[in-house]
Amino acid sequence: MLRAVQEVGYQVCLTTNVLDPGNPLLIEAGAPASCSRPRRMVVIDAAVAALYGDEIGNYFAFHDAEYHPLILDAAESHKRMESVHQVIDELDRFGIDRRREPLIAIGGGVLTDIASFAASIYRRNTPYVRVPTTLIGLVDAGVGAKTGVNHHRHKNRIGTYFPPTVSLCDRRFLATLDHRHIVNGMAEILKIALVKDVRLFELLEESGADLVRDRFQPRYDGRSAEEVLERAIEGMLEELAPNLWEHKLERLVDYGHTFSPTLEMRALPELLHGEAVAIDMALTTLLGAQRGQVTDADAVRVLALMRTLGLPTSHPLCEPELLTAALRETVRHRDGRQRMPLPVGIGGARFVDDLSAAELTRAAKSLSAEAVHA
Amino acid sequence: MLRAVQEVGYQVCLTTNVLDPGNPLLIEAGAPASCSRPRRMVVIDAAVAALYGDEIGNYFAFHDAEYHPLILDAAESHKRMESVHQVIDELDRFGIDRRREPLIAIGGGVLTDIASFAASIYRRNTPYVRVPTTLIGLVDAGVGAKTGVNHHRHKNRIGTYFPPTVSLCDRRFLATLDHRHIVNGMAEILKIALVKDVRLFELLEESGADLVRDRFQPRYDGRSAEEVLERAIEGMLEELAPNLWEHKLERLVDYGHTFSPTLEMRALPELLHGEAVAIDMALTTLLGAQRGQVTDADAVRVLALMRTLGLPTSHPLCEPELLTAALRETVRHRDGRQRMPLPVGIGGARFVDDLSAAELTRAAKSLSAEAVHA
Repeated sequence: MLRAVQEVGYQVCLTTNVLDPGNPLLIEAGAPASCSRPRRMVVIDAAVAALYGDEIGNYFAFHDAEYHPLILDAAESHKRMESVHQVIDELDRFGIDRRREPLIAIGGGVLTDIASFAASIYRRNTPYVRVPTTLIGLVDAGVGAKTGVNHHRHKNRIGTYFPPTVSLCDRRFLATLDHRHIVNGMAEILKIALVKDVRLFELLEESGADLVRDRFQPRYDGRSAEEVLERAIEGMLEELAPNLWEHKLERLVDYGHTFSPTLEMRALPELLHGEAVAIDMALTTLLGAQRGQVTDADAVRVLALMRTLGLPTSHPLCEPELLTAALRETVRHRDGRQRMPLPVGIGGARFVDDLSAAELTRAAKSLSAEAVHA
Repeated sequence: MLRAVQEVGYQVCLTTNVLDPGNPLLIEAGAPASCSRPRRMVVIDAAVAALYGDEIGNYFAFHDAEYHPLILDAAESHKRMESVHQVIDELDRFGIDRRREPLIAIGGGVLTDIASFAASIYRRNTPYVRVPTTLIGLVDAGVGAKTGVNHHRHKNRIGTYFPPTVSLCDRRFLATLDHRHIVNGMAEILKIALVKDVRLFELLEESGADLVRDRFQPRYDGRSAEEVLERAIEGMLEELAPNLWEHKLERLVDYGHTFSPTLEMRALPELLHGEAVAIDMALTTLLGAQRGQVTDADAVRVLALMRTLGLPTSHPLCEPELLTAALRETVRHRDGRQRMPLPVGIGGARFVDDLSAAELTRAAKSLSAEAVHA
């Protein structure tokens, strides 16, 4: 019997103006102090390159670094092994010195999933630095350890757990993100609030609508933007740290992810990920209310906040049949049990295994009635 | 800053007749006790399938398991991403339940490297059981955690560290392995003896030639075969356990692997891996002797044992120029320093960073003179 222990550590830094030449974080991230000229290969989302390509180039020029960009189309349809090979072949061409020259990935979740998967398998691991540019990247995909691509219509069928050396989270990128994708990211922030952080929920009630409208670029000071992002990221990291490789199947961060995967796939391409998650959370809030775990007043508060943020709370596809099929699929993924986080009040949750079809049908009915009344 | 700790454990079992239906190890390995009918996908080396295919099928039939074989050509030229995709597509077709149905890989190092890489990236990890069928697999590749394939003529350019749940080591497969591959595996056993186990060295002196001749299938009892395999595997595991992810670059098991990678590639396809390693060890034994770390008598003993085992001790390509280039390449892989294990007597070694070109030239000359005298 061989036993070995691996300690993994990574940093998530909230910073602003990561592309400002005066900000040394990006050039220093993950690299040992060295007297030789720095070299960096940087994988950039095509949409990001169009907006920030010059700034990125100027940043590395200012730091006198050899700059080797690779621009990738990061549409969901490009999230496949061919794109991983593009990154690998470019790493070969660049001749990366993987102990001194971390790969840098700048983009949304699809881009960073592709680039980080390539890094994880290149020479059995090549350190990388992640710069998420979407809200969902800042608070969710961009701060975790999962990498991967789709394969034959299966989502993330191929991948690894391989955390970045550093994630640099800069809300300035959100200034150019479209409204719908801001709202989309809000769903994952709300998720953390609902399962573990009532203070975050209150912050969203106070200033969530402003943050959406201003794309987290507040006019006067950035205090509420910072506080919301910080709490969302910290809450996420607290849940990830003891369970980075997901050996434990009862995960609070799976809240909103019981019914939404099936809903998202069936509704394709109508719903964004966060939108499907929001509908799942609306439904499970009602399930919690039916069981008396959530007061009716709190359930109303939750649904009201969703609407304030611009998130959907129901969908015509949310019929008992789809919900039952979705639950069955989730049970399969969770090794035979529901392990479903169900809210307890606002800011708490517990796991249940005994949700019945009758409860689901009742909640689905209330939800569509809700939608009519709203 | 997020810190997470992963504990990895895997078993290496020495067994005999792993395909005997009376031996429950293979069907039980890595699977939870279950009342449902077992299902197993088994990736098999084509060369192994030709010899043992029926036995493997019978084994799973006896245990009333749904048996889903995938036979792969495991020549070095097939050690590439295409083969990994073959395994992945078959995992999809089979519809593996990865928490209950470990993938099984039966074959030499190339086969198990391909199959274990596929397992490591399929759904971010799918447990697997390894059954090495070559001597080098039993004592080296088959008991470690490395997976991978070649890419654009770069050896193991893409891969992961992903140990099996269980390695089942059965020397019975060696009965059908050709003589040269038995000798090839002997080099890795000798390596462990030279750097850390003088008792193993003595065992090889006593019975190494018999073991090679009898392919580890001794006529009366298997004691020396068992003892040699056990000591070699245990020695290997002792070195791997504290350094499974190779963060530490000073590795005793790199002995014989300073000059041999370049030699092996330049001499292709003439030299097998173990043969190149043997030549490297002969050279470094002389380097140790030049420095007074190894007595002349011990150096003679080492070279004599190599010849007894049928291993080469020199090669016409072993000229100062190639050796210097090889050392430069190794220094690059070891982050700028030689970190070369150099023998201290028999059964010990220490790391050096200061090997000079003059020493190399002198050792290379002695080695070719040796070859002439031998």
